[in-house]
Parts: sequence; C-alpha cells; structure tokens
Amino acid sequence: MSTGDDLSRWGWGYADREPSEADRRELKSRVETMLGFPERPLLELPDDGAPTVPESRVEPPFHFCTTDPEVRARHTYGKGYPDLVRGFYGEYGPAPDAVARPERESDIPDLLLWASDERVAIVPYGGGTSVVGGVECRGAGYSGVVSLDTRELDEVLEVDHTSRAARVQAGATGPGLNAQLAEEGLQLRHYPQSYEFSTFGGWVATRAGGHFATRYTHIDDFVESVRAVTPAGVLETRRLPASGAGPDPNRFLLGSEGAFGVITEGWVRVQPRPRHRSRATVRFDDFWDGVEATRELVQARFSPANCRLLGPREAMLNELAADGSSLLLLGFESLDGPTVETMERALAVCADHGGEWDDPTHEGPDAGGAEANGPEGGGREEAQTSGESAGDDDRTGTEGEWRNSFFEAPYRFNTLVSIGVLVDTFETAVTWDRFPDLHEAVRERVGTAMREECGAGFLSCRFTHVYPDGPAPYYTLLAPADPGDEVEQWRAIKQAASDTLDEFDATTTHHHAVGRVHRDHYHREIPDGYLDALRSMKRTLDPEGIMNPGALL
Amino acid sequence: MSTGDDLSRWGWGYADREPSEADRRELKSRVETMLGFPERPLLELPDDGAPTVPESRVEPPFHFCTTDPEVRARHTYGKGYPDLVRGFYGEYGPAPDAVARPERESDIPDLLLWASDERVAIVPYGGGTSVVGGVECRGAGYSGVVSLDTRELDEVLEVDHTSRAARVQAGATGPGLNAQLAEEGLQLRHYPQSYEFSTFGGWVATRAGGHFATRYTHIDDFVESVRAVTPAGVLETRRLPASGAGPDPNRFLLGSEGAFGVITEGWVRVQPRPRHRSRATVRFDDFWDGVEATRELVQARFSPANCRLLGPREAMLNELAADGSSLLLLGFESLDGPTVETMERALAVCADHGGEWDDPTHEGPDAGGAEANGPEGGGREEAQTSGESAGDDDRTGTEGEWRNSFFEAPYRFNTLVSIGVLVDTFETAVTWDRFPDLHEAVRERVGTAMREECGAGFLSCRFTHVYPDGPAPYYTLLAPADPGDEVEQWRAIKQAASDTLDEFDATTTHHHAVGRVHRDHYHREIPDGYLDALRSMKRTLDPEGIMNPGALL
Repeated sequence: MSTGDDLSRWGWGYADREPSEADRRELKSRVETMLGFPERPLLELPDDGAPTVPESRVEPPFHFCTTDPEVRARHTYGKGYPDLVRGFYGEYGPAPDAVARPERESDIPDLLLWASDERVAIVPYGGGTSVVGGVECRGAGYSGVVSLDTRELDEVLEVDHTSRAARVQAGATGPGLNAQLAEEGLQLRHYPQSYEFSTFGGWVATRAGGHFATRYTHIDDFVESVRAVTPAGVLETRRLPASGAGPDPNRFLLGSEGAFGVITEGWVRVQPRPRHRSRATVRFDDFWDGVEATRELVQARFSPANCRLLGPREAMLNELAADGSSLLLLGFESLDGPTVETMERALAVCADHGGEWDDPTHEGPDAGGAEANGPEGGGREEAQTSGESAGDDDRTGTEGEWRNSFFEAPYRFNTLVSIGVLVDTFETAVTWDRFPDLHEAVRERVGTAMREECGAGFLSCRFTHVYPDGPAPYYTLLAPADPGDEVEQWRAIKQAASDTLDEFDATTTHHHAVGRVHRDHYHREIPDGYLDALRSMKRTLDPEGIMNPGALL
Repeated sequence: MSTGDDLSRWGWGYADREPSEADRRELKSRVETMLGFPERPLLELPDDGAPTVPESRVEPPFHFCTTDPEVRARHTYGKGYPDLVRGFYGEYGPAPDAVARPERESDIPDLLLWASDERVAIVPYGGGTSVVGGVECRGAGYSGVVSLDTRELDEVLEVDHTSRAARVQAGATGPGLNAQLAEEGLQLRHYPQSYEFSTFGGWVATRAGGHFATRYTHIDDFVESVRAVTPAGVLETRRLPASGAGPDPNRFLLGSEGAFGVITEGWVRVQPRPRHRSRATVRFDDFWDGVEATRELVQARFSPANCRLLGPREAMLNELAADGSSLLLLGFESLDGPTVETMERALAVCADHGGEWDDPTHEGPDAGGAEANGPEGGGREEAQTSGESAGDDDRTGTEGEWRNSFFEAPYRFNTLVSIGVLVDTFETAVTWDRFPDLHEAVRERVGTAMREECGAGFLSCRFTHVYPDGPAPYYTLLAPADPGDEVEQWRAIKQAASDTLDEFDATTTHHHAVGRVHRDHYHREIPDGYLDALRSMKRTLDPEGIMNPGALL
C-alpha cells in the first residue's frame, strides 16, 4: 500500500503517472481536432523542488505530527480541478500548519483536546481525493490548521463470517481493504472512481457512491455501525442489521464530512465474489429512448449491478461510439444463480424502446466462462489496473473498456490541466418527471457559461446510478482555459451548474459530497430548520468548532 | 373511511368486533388446554357508559379542538397490552385535556404557537396504534396536554406517474391511502400489522415495518421526501430519488416520533401490483436448520417478499403445524418476469438444510393463475378482510391462513385481555453470530419472568424480516395474569425482555418504535453523544419542549 511518497504532489495518483510529453501531445491533438478547441499550450510542468508553504503557525506537541513542508503541501488540496490547477502552479498558500498521522485511535482524543484548547482547526484527511474542497481549510479565525491523516489506521480488525461483516479502520484504502478481505474470501464490492486512493472513513464521511448502479448505490447501504472520535468523546453505534429505534445514528455520521468528529472505524457488510455475471451493451439511436428504457427497467424492479446510460457525447468521449448513438451498459451479477434469463428479459425491455445489441456475455460455473476465484491483492500493480481491483476479470468488450476508462479518467485530468483544458464533472439526482427540463437547462446554461468564460465548451452526460423514481445524471465538461485564469473560469461555470440544479430542486450532489464548494447550495437544498438543528448538534459534539470548519455547515 | 366513532373505545379495531361470549369461551378453553394455563376468568366487559376522565386543564381556542370526554378517552392510549388493560377497566386518568383535529395543515402552526406560549404539551396522534406508549402523555410540568389527531388530513394530493411517486397527507390510513392510489392503478405495498388503522404520518414518525421481509422492510425505504410542522416552522425536504449531500434530512424525521414536530405529508415511491408471485411453505424438523436456510437465502442475495421463519411454538400458535416443526413461509413477487425459477433455486437451498415442502404455488400471466387487477378499495368490508388489502388474492393454503391470522391477531388481544391472559409481542434485530445466544437468553429469562410473575408462560418466535447480516426475531408471549395486577406483571416481564436485548447489544426495537416504553433502553442503545445531539436538535426546533414530551428523548 502506498505510504504517500510515491504519489504525485499535485496531480491524481502516482507520481510516475504524471503526464508524459507523448500523453500531452496526443490529448492536445485530440481536443483540438475532436472537440474543435483552439490550439492548446503545453504548459511548463511543475518541478520537483521543495514546495513553498507559509510558515507554520502552530506546532502540535505530539510525536505523530509534522510540520515538514513537503508533507504539508501534499495535504493542502483534494483532487478537484481547481486543486490540480493550483498544485500544478505550485500554489500551496492554504497548506495546513501541520499534519498529524496518528498510529492508533487513542492518539486522537488528545489531539482534539489540545486543538480545542488552542483553537486549532482539525481537518480529517483520508485519501485526499475530495473534489469539493473537503480537505482545504484556511482556518480564518483559528490559530492554525492541522490535517489529520488517518492512513496509518488501515486494518481490517475482525471478520464475522457468520454474519458476513467486517470491522474496518477508517484509513484503509480501497485496494488495502479488499486485499485484507480477500484473504478471508470476501469483498466489500464498493468501487467509487477514487477507489485506488480513497479510504473507508472518507467513504462514510462523504456518503461515497460505488459502482453498483442500483440497490447498493452508496456506502450507506453497506454500513452496519460507525465509530467516531469527537471533541466531546467517542461515538460508537451498535452493530445491527437494522433498527427502527429513533432517527438512525449511522445516518447522522454518514455524510458528516468531519464536521462533528473523525470517523475511526466501522462494521461493513461484505460478500463473496459473485458467481454469475451477464453483460450487454445496448445501442439507442436516440438518447431519450435510452432514458425511457432505463426508467422502465428500474421501475420494473430489475436490479442491474451496472446500468450506465451514456449520452452520445459521453459515448464519443470514451471512444465507445462515434455515430451519435447512446449506449446503455447493462450488467447483472448474482451469487445464487445464472443471470442469463434476467438479462434476456432486460434486453426485451430495451428492444421495446428501439435498443440494439450484440450478443451479451455470460460468466459463471454453468456458462462455460472461467470463474475467477483468485484473491484480489492490494499491491500497486493491481491497483493500477483497477479493472481487476473492481472485481472484473473480463476486461474485453465495451464494458471492459468502459471500466478501464472509468478508473483511468482521473489520470487524464492531470494531462488536461497541463495543456490548458478546463475539466470538471458534476452530478445530481432528480425525479424522472423533472429530468428532461433539468437536462435541457443544464446543457443550455452550462454551455453558455463555458462559451462566455472560455469561448467554447463540451458537455456530456451519463447516468451513473438509477432509481425507480429518478436517475442520477453525471455531467463531464471540457473547455479551453486561459492559463492563469483557470480557477476563476471554473468558478463561474461551476456556479452556473450548481444554480441550475438548485433551480430544478435537484440535489446539489449525488455522491461528490458537500465540502466547501457545494456548501452554499447545500444550505439551500435542506430545510432551514434542519440546518439550524445540524448546527446545534455540532455545538454539542464540537463546542469549540474545531472540526473541519467551513465544510458542510 | 372510519371517522373513529365506529371503533372500540378500549380495544383493537372496530367496536362490533369486541369479543363475543363465544370468542371468549373458545379462547379460554384453548389457553387452558393447549397452553396448560390455570382456569381463566370471564372478566366483566366494559360498559358503554360515558367514560370518566379528569377535568380538562386547558381549552384550546380553536374551532377544531374539543374537550368532549368520549373523544378524550379515545385518545388516551395506544394499543399495547397495558393500554388495552387500562381501557378495559375504564381507567382514563392520563386522558389528554383536549383533542385537536385540524382540517388543514395551516391550522397547525397556530396551535403549536399557542401551545408554546401556554406550555401545553402536543401529542401527535395518527391511528393510535402505538404499542410503546407513543401517544400517552401525562404532561407533568405542563399546563395541559393536547392530542393532535391528523386523520382529517387524509388525501393523496398528487400522483407522479412518470416517477411513480405520490404525495400523501399524514392522516391517510393504510386502506384509505391504497384506495386512493388504486384509482391510479398504483399501490404503496407497505403493510404493517396495524395497516387497517395506522396512518402514513405515524409510519414515518415510527419507522414502521411493512410485510416485505427483505429489501423494503421499513417505510424508510419508500420515502422520497417529508414535510413536518415544528414549533420553529415548517421543515420540508426536497423530492429526490437519492442524494449524497450531508446527513440525510429524511432520516432525521424518520423515527422522530413527534418529538421535533408533526409530520403533515410526504412523497412516497409507489408501484403497480406485482404480476408474478410464487409461494411455498417449507417445513424443517429443527428450528436451527430453518435458521441456517434463511441465513443462506438472504446472504445469497435472494430478495423474497415473504421470508417468515416460524418457530415450532409460533407455528402451533397460528395453527399451521402442531408436530414441533418450524415453517418457513417463502414468497417471491415480481413486476417483470416469472418467479418460478427463483423459487426453485430458493427451495434447493432449503433442501440442503433438510427443508421439505408441498408444491409451491405460482401466479402470473404465464402461470395459468388469474392475475388480479381490480382496484383495492379502502372500504370497511375490505379492511376487515385485510388479506385482500394486503394485496393477496389467493388466501388459500398456509400462506393465506398466515396472512389472515396476521391481520386478525390484534383482535385476539382484545379477547385475551378479557379472559385474564397477559399477551405481548416484542421484536429486535441482531447479527447472525449473536442470534443463538440471544435467543437462548430470551427464552430463559423471559420464561423465568413469566413464571415468577404469573406462575406460567408461553413464548414463541418468528423472524418477521431478515437481512444479510442478521434476522429480526419477533417474540409473542402469553401468560395467565392476575386481574387487577396485569400492568405490574407486564412491566416486570417487559423489563426482563428489554434488559436481555440490551445485554446482547441487540436493538431495542426493530419496528415497534421507542415511545415511552422503550425510552430508557433506547438511550442505552445509542451513543451518549448522539443522544445529547438529538436533544440539542430538539431545543432548536421545539424551544419550549412542547412536542410529545417523554417520548423518544
């Protein structure tokens, strides 16, 4: 597992995956020809010299803390577009004053006590993959900021095979967690796009979305109990399969984003590798036919593991179709029996809406396909080919390409930043009745904002998750940026996007979390009284207001 | 729909279903012979005379309020055993001082304002079916208590066919709600045992459990948004299929039990009647084989609509088996395709654990069985034969008998009270690894408590809901009571039951809610810091503490 030193200081992922000259030239050529962007520059890449960070205002009196500039620089930002840009330019002004890396949970209460006394802000930090400013804290009004990195707490502490549950420490990353579970023949099967680097604690704190398109869409659906350290003490919920006793305490910690305390561990529901799988890629000439097919599938209570509808531009961007058709990537998995018939029935629904497909693929003991039972390691090589880490042995075909592309996408952001291309994604969820108008408005207004700010722009859409009552549309945007002005350009476009979601009463975020970027819109999304109530909860658990100030609340 | 006048003042359900002489003699004979209880008395039935209630301490200045003694008596209790007993003896000491029955939501804010000013406790009241003292408030420290009956607000206000969702007022009862949805060809498919009388608002406030044994086990799983009136103003969450934005505001209102405000409406996910169904009853010689089969089914991610494992005494009590075998009532339903193969695979799992069954029954367009498409009305006749209301056309066979018995059971409580039999049910949820020890301890300690208090006792168990990580066991207890001492005897036995659940870190309640009966145990179940945080939320939304004081918090 990575200790962090092998990661890029500024970009997504590993340092040796930072954009090469060839990557840059190829992508430059593609955005110029494919998207028609004006000629893009090859910006000067960041050097390896020591980063410039402000002088530390505080020095925590604990052996597990450091004020080393390199470490502080690496804990300054998440991995959103403005984060990558500022890192790219070596701007580490908002660096925390110190980084704490506790070796055991019992280190944390003392740190929080000290911070409460000294009025130092504490920013919980897992994989540092936030795209919403979740770990960036300037600490105005505080005597300093300490980033609390949980990654030493990375063990699977217990496995209950009878109940199929595991007790996991917050700092375990996706591959680290699954490597430990694989030794027990189990998997969590929660694969957010940040899977390689993000942590279990981060998933819980941000209600991370996984790869399941239905049913187990968020980490919420796997959590049995949570343990957190707050300034007012430890909070630990009971391990329960379910309960009807009062407002669910797990749901209060799920999505708490470090504002009440730091999540240190939890019990999660785990499962063996699925024995049967069926996959198909369905082509629709018209996006709206694909929408209707998807709606009918999910309303008929099909529960596909994968049900990603790619709009024509999204299919083009991922090089899966170039003729203007939309693609529905459909996958079923099962522990108990073949998925062949379910897939056939689902394809019949697609046919009713004009969908066409090549032969679906089936895997499983009865399907002639090899059943992969090998343990999934957590080593770096495997994490790099994360299709495997995501439980996918078969990486051929459209779905395989898609999955590789899914985990590779964040690496491409590094390259885009380095050639002056503004790139971002935003997502929401909305009921089916409102989706067409919302979608039209997003295209119109975000398109306008990109043209106004950047002179051009490209916007694509896919559904990442679908529900009986509505889809979770996910938008990717690309625009030619003016080097030096990227963050301001991004801010204007982001504002247009979030304002549009708000106007249609769609959610501010389906799985990217609130952080600082979405905070104002989140406050509009929830009832005023609930915001007041959350703030009063915070005052109870964090009387000095040291926990991740400015995020969420 | 019932206006309430045709309901029994003291017992479950309709007045004309109060126990007849024949009912009483038959049940008396059965408990004496079948359970070996000492001879039971035929206690004097309550008369129809005006109830005795204390003088009203307050008279709310609103046209929709009354201090009529009959109405006050009818709003004194829920329908737990101690409630029935006290009603049976005509003890209405804890009657509210007045009953408010607002005709529109806009009546409520003024009532709460007045109550806050006058320090009058407000107790939200739906169907009055609480078994945990949720509507019984003595109002110590308050100048009076007003029961806020929501049943005039009983309409389905909007139906969104595209998203399959409906906007429902809080006071709609199960049959009333489904009758209105049936006009649109839709159903909610949430059938708690209290379905005939309980209300949508009550379901949300108490996180009611429905008949689905897996997946959609609680009303929580159907709720898209909630609207509530609190003393600090209206709280309304956005209609969203899902969100990842902060701690879920719906989850804060789900289970709030009137402690923050009164729920007035919400959007719920609805669906058409299932087109395919398969049912089977599997017999196991040994209860623990049934437990293992059930665990394997749910861990293999089968999602049966019905998966009720009845222990040998439960099977006997329901007259479904008398030979000491346990029964698994297994049912699948589907909108999209036949359930025949799924049932076959599930039965194969049961066979691996020694299960035996007669031929399963299959319904659906392809199965030769009639597909019932008629609307489900909400009239009284139908509600009385609630098997139909619960969407079950086929009421033959073990499952049909079980379902009739399920909805009839509460009526039997009336009769048992009238012949000096203590009767109660309690439920929990616990992980599979802890279930055997918990079950043994419950049998031992609740058995001992019944013997000590009553000289004898009978305890049976079934699983009402099952999860991959654990079951929700539901216990029914019967004991010969000493007339006049029933409530004290019940209290001691209940204490033994709740203490045992607590000792094994099982939940205090899987779907009966917290109310006043479970409050102390609930406070032990949740983390201290969370209880403090909930109390601070309450102070924010209900500064004068008028909302259902003593329940939940």
